Amino acid sequence: MRTSGFCIMETLDLRAGMRMQSKIILAVHGGAGTIRRESMSAKAEAAYRATIAVALQAGHRILASGGASLDAVAAAVRVFEDDPLFNAGKGAVFAHEGHVELDAAVMDGKTGLAGAVAGVRTIKNPVLAARAVMDKTKHVLLAGAGAEQFAAEHQIEIVDPSYFHTDARWKQLQQAKASSQIKLDHDGQSAVTAATQFQAWQTDNKFGTVGAVALDAFGNLAAATSTGGLTNKFYGRVGDSPIIGAGTYADNATAAVSGTGVGEFFMRGLIAYDIAARMKYQKLTLSDAVDQTIRDALDECGGQGGVIAVDASGNVKIGFNTEGMYRGYIKYDGVPVVAIYRE
Amino acid sequence: MRTSGFCIMETLDLRAGMRMQSKIILAVHGGAGTIRRESMSAKAEAAYRATIAVALQAGHRILASGGASLDAVAAAVRVFEDDPLFNAGKGAVFAHEGHVELDAAVMDGKTGLAGAVAGVRTIKNPVLAARAVMDKTKHVLLAGAGAEQFAAEHQIEIVDPSYFHTDARWKQLQQAKASSQIKLDHDGQSAVTAATQFQAWQTDNKFGTVGAVALDAFGNLAAATSTGGLTNKFYGRVGDSPIIGAGTYADNATAAVSGTGVGEFFMRGLIAYDIAARMKYQKLTLSDAVDQTIRDALDECGGQGGVIAVDASGNVKIGFNTEGMYRGYIKYDGVPVVAIYRE
Repeated sequence: MRTSGFCIMETLDLRAGMRMQSKIILAVHGGAGTIRRESMSAKAEAAYRATIAVALQAGHRILASGGASLDAVAAAVRVFEDDPLFNAGKGAVFAHEGHVELDAAVMDGKTGLAGAVAGVRTIKNPVLAARAVMDKTKHVLLAGAGAEQFAAEHQIEIVDPSYFHTDARWKQLQQAKASSQIKLDHDGQSAVTAATQFQAWQTDNKFGTVGAVALDAFGNLAAATSTGGLTNKFYGRVGDSPIIGAGTYADNATAAVSGTGVGEFFMRGLIAYDIAARMKYQKLTLSDAVDQTIRDALDECGGQGGVIAVDASGNVKIGFNTEGMYRGYIKYDGVPVVAIYRE
Repeated sequence: MRTSGFCIMETLDLRAGMRMQSKIILAVHGGAGTIRRESMSAKAEAAYRATIAVALQAGHRILASGGASLDAVAAAVRVFEDDPLFNAGKGAVFAHEGHVELDAAVMDGKTGLAGAVAGVRTIKNPVLAARAVMDKTKHVLLAGAGAEQFAAEHQIEIVDPSYFHTDARWKQLQQAKASSQIKLDHDGQSAVTAATQFQAWQTDNKFGTVGAVALDAFGNLAAATSTGGLTNKFYGRVGDSPIIGAGTYADNATAAVSGTGVGEFFMRGLIAYDIAARMKYQKLTLSDAVDQTIRDALDECGGQGGVIAVDASGNVKIGFNTEGMYRGYIKYDGVPVVAIYRE
C-alpha cells in the first residue's frame, strides 16, 4: 500500500486513513452579494477566480498529505486574508473612523472547541488569532484591544494599521461617507451626524466575508470564517462571522458551515448551527438542511447571504439567495471547482 | 368583563387577552454556581431572596397590566443590575485592569429581533442599551466604546466608572490577583505575567449572570440577560450573555431562554437555541428539551450552569447542574416563588 507514494496518511493511521482518504473535501467562499457578470471585467473575474483556486489548493495540500481539516481551513482563509481583493485581512473594508475592525472564528468538529476574535485592528491574520484563542485558552471570544494583546503575546503577527490601507477600500469609505453626508443636518450635533450616517449605512448592501470548511482523512470537520465587516461601520458593530453558531460552526456528527451575507440575519437565525440542528434532530441530509435553513432564516426574513457546508460523508453543499457568491470546492482529485455567478 | 378591574388587556385585545391573561409568567435568575446553604448567612440569604422577589414583581406588574414581555424582562433585569449583590450593572465584578466590562442582550420572540452590547464600561443599565440596539438599529451586537457612544446618543444613562465601584467586588479582584500572582515569574516579561494570570483565572469558577424570560397576555415571549462576566478577566473576553442563541434566545414558536454558567459551554453548545431547536425539530416539551440540552451540552462536556425557560403555553422550566442557582418565577396570581439551593 505504501508504494502509492502520496499517502502520508497510510503511515499515520492505516485504519481510518485508507477509508476516508478518498473523501477529503474543502469548500471556500469569498463573500456573497450583488455580483453581476455584466459589471465585472474579465481581468477582475480572472483575479477573483485565481485566488479562490489558490485558497482551495492551499487547503487541499494539507488534506491530501494527511493534515487536519482545522489546518486546512485556516490555510485557505489565510490566502483570502492576504489578498486585497477580498474583505478580510489585507483587503478589509474601513470602519467609519478610517481603521479596519476585523472578526474571525474557527471551530473544530472533532472536539467542539472554538475560538474567535472581534473588532481587532492590528492582527495581520485574524484567523490565526482565532485559532490561538481556541488552542491556548479556555475561552471562545476575545474582543478589541484585549484580543490584540493576547495575539501579540502568543506570537501572532501584529502589523501597523497602515498595512491594511488599500486605495480601493479607502475610496469606498469616502464614497460611503459622501453618499450618507448628503442627508446630514449640518446644524445638528455630532450625535445627529453619527446617527444619520449610521442610518444611511445600514441601508447599504455592501458586504463580504471569507470562509472555508473541510473534511480531512480522519473524518474530522472544521470551519473558519474571517471578515472586515461593513464599509463605514459605526458603533463597534460586530457581525456573525466571530459568533459560533451564527456564521461559523462545525461538528463531526453533522456538518461544518461558514456563512456570508447580512450578518444580523445569521445571528438571529443561528444559521450555521440551525443547519446542524436540522441534520441532528430531523435527520435531514446536508443539502436539505442548507436549503431549508436558507428558506426559513433568510428568504422568509428578507435576509441575504449564503453558506458553504460539508459533512462527514464528504458531501458538499453551497447555498445562497444572492445574485452571486465567490465560491469553490476541491475534492480528492485536487481539481479546483470555482464559480462566481448564479449559473 | 371590564368590571374585573385589573385587566387593561381586555380593552386592548379582547380576543387574545382573555384567553392568555391567565397564562402570563415571568422567570428570573441571578446566577448559578457554587452556592451552599452552609456558607450563606441568614441575612445574606434574605437579601438575595428579597431582590429576586422584587425583580419578579417588577416584571409581573407589567405583564398583569397587559404590558409586553419585552418590557417585563427588561424591568426585571434592571432590578438586578441596580443591586450590588448581583454580578450585573452596579454589582458587576471587575476585569483585570480594575474596570467593569458589561454584556447584555434581549430578544423578542414575536419578531425574532434581538439586540446586545458587549464590553461596555459606562452604561448604567446594559439591558436598556441592548433594547435600544434592537429598537433603533438593524444590528444585533455593538461592542466596546462604539456601543457606549451609541447608548449616549440614544438617551441611555451613562455613568462615571466610579459608579460601579463596590468594596466587595474590589476585594474580590485583589484576592483573585493575589492568588494568581503567587505563580508569577517576576523576572519574566509582562507578557508572561498576563498569560500566567490568565491561566490562573481560567481555573477559577466564580461566575454570575442575571436574566429574565416572560410570556405576556398576547402570547409573546421575550428573554433578557445581563452580566459583569468574570472577576479579573483578561484580554477582552466576551461570554455567552450577549450572544444570541448561546445565553439568550426567544421565539414565540418554541421558548424564551436565559442562561447562566461557564459561558464558553453555552457558546459552543448554543444552549439557548438548542433548547428551542429540540422543541421545533424533535417536538420535545419545554421540560424535556431543557433537560436534554443540559445533559448533552453541559453534563457531558464538563460544563456548569443553568437556564430559565418559558414557552407560549405558560410552562416554566428551570434547569441547572450546579449546586445552586438564584432563581424564581411568578405567575398570574402574582405570588413570587423564590429558590436558591438545589432542594
